[in-house]
Amino acid sequence: MRTIDEQPPGGKRRGRRPGGQDTRTALIAAAREVFSENGYDGATVRAIASRAGVDAAMVNHWFGGKDALFATAVLELPFDPAEVVSALLEGEVDTLGERIVRRFVTTWDATDGGSFPALIRSLASHDKAALALRNFLIENILNRVIDRIEADHPQLRAGLCASQLIGLGMVRYVAEFEPLSSAEIEWLATAVGPTMQRYLTGELELPRSN
Amino acid sequence: MRTIDEQPPGGKRRGRRPGGQDTRTALIAAAREVFSENGYDGATVRAIASRAGVDAAMVNHWFGGKDALFATAVLELPFDPAEVVSALLEGEVDTLGERIVRRFVTTWDATDGGSFPALIRSLASHDKAALALRNFLIENILNRVIDRIEADHPQLRAGLCASQLIGLGMVRYVAEFEPLSSAEIEWLATAVGPTMQRYLTGELELPRSN
Repeated sequence: MRTIDEQPPGGKRRGRRPGGQDTRTALIAAAREVFSENGYDGATVRAIASRAGVDAAMVNHWFGGKDALFATAVLELPFDPAEVVSALLEGEVDTLGERIVRRFVTTWDATDGGSFPALIRSLASHDKAALALRNFLIENILNRVIDRIEADHPQLRAGLCASQLIGLGMVRYVAEFEPLSSAEIEWLATAVGPTMQRYLTGELELPRSN
Repeated sequence: MRTIDEQPPGGKRRGRRPGGQDTRTALIAAAREVFSENGYDGATVRAIASRAGVDAAMVNHWFGGKDALFATAVLELPFDPAEVVSALLEGEVDTLGERIVRRFVTTWDATDGGSFPALIRSLASHDKAALALRNFLIENILNRVIDRIEADHPQLRAGLCASQLIGLGMVRYVAEFEPLSSAEIEWLATAVGPTMQRYLTGELELPRSN
């Protein structure tokens, strides 16, 4: 068993047990190491807390769980996936498409677009962290939304939604094509929302062969 | 005037005037330098030919023009944009959306997905070449297709199309989400084609404020 008295490697602690923001900072540093070494599935809350030299309960206290710690520490996502998913699922399914677009653009706009290119770079790399990121985005965001809708072809629908959102982010924050780069959020919700809605709940009429 | 006898910098010629594949190779190397130094608009066919030590007519002979040279040399695109655009515009406008998707996936699949991540890296960089790439993709492919359709909001439609295509490429070739990563082309044409068609010719019903 790890205890709160265990010290992190490196010996940089200032002679007292970490508390408050120190604990949070130590957990983020430890999480980056452990997720990078073991991937998303292989990293445990206990191993991260042990590496940070704090009690495992501190992960829940400061982040609400492994998912949110991963989102904050490794992805530096500007949102908590669990909170986003439950907010999206509270509203009407008929408006889910445009609500996802509105939420997506609002969230990334708030970082002044600075965080989205970093996410893309992570996604495009070929290390364990990229695999962890893919699993995380699919398992913890897309699949949770799709599962609730109970549509056919859930994995395909999740991928189609991801394609439109990633592409919208690429055009708005990375390639910066105008007018999409500076278009108002309601324009984007109106223009792209129906695409998302069809991918979520529409009839896809796929060819038989597959 | 430059003449075919001008030598490229570096003195690596094997003592004879470049001909055939030598000329083509020299033009590609020169084009990479000149486009990188001057951007797409600033680079002239004459400057590139001069740098390569060949006559400017060789650019048309080997590549059909500045656009195709840029596509081959700098973007390493696996297609000639002019040829793609005219092929797309020959068919019915009603099926343009799915024909674009089919063409996009067929083209990049043929490179075994290897070229798409390179395109994304170029697009995400912040040098002159990235600006040149953006201008090139918009001016020479998207706008040419959109102009022919004569729809409202042509720039917005071009950006929306770009967002879905780039996102589809990201999911299929970079993030490699299944089942989209290995889905058959006809599945993708059926699933994504209607999105493209709406972006091209559909009623976008944008809010008044913009």
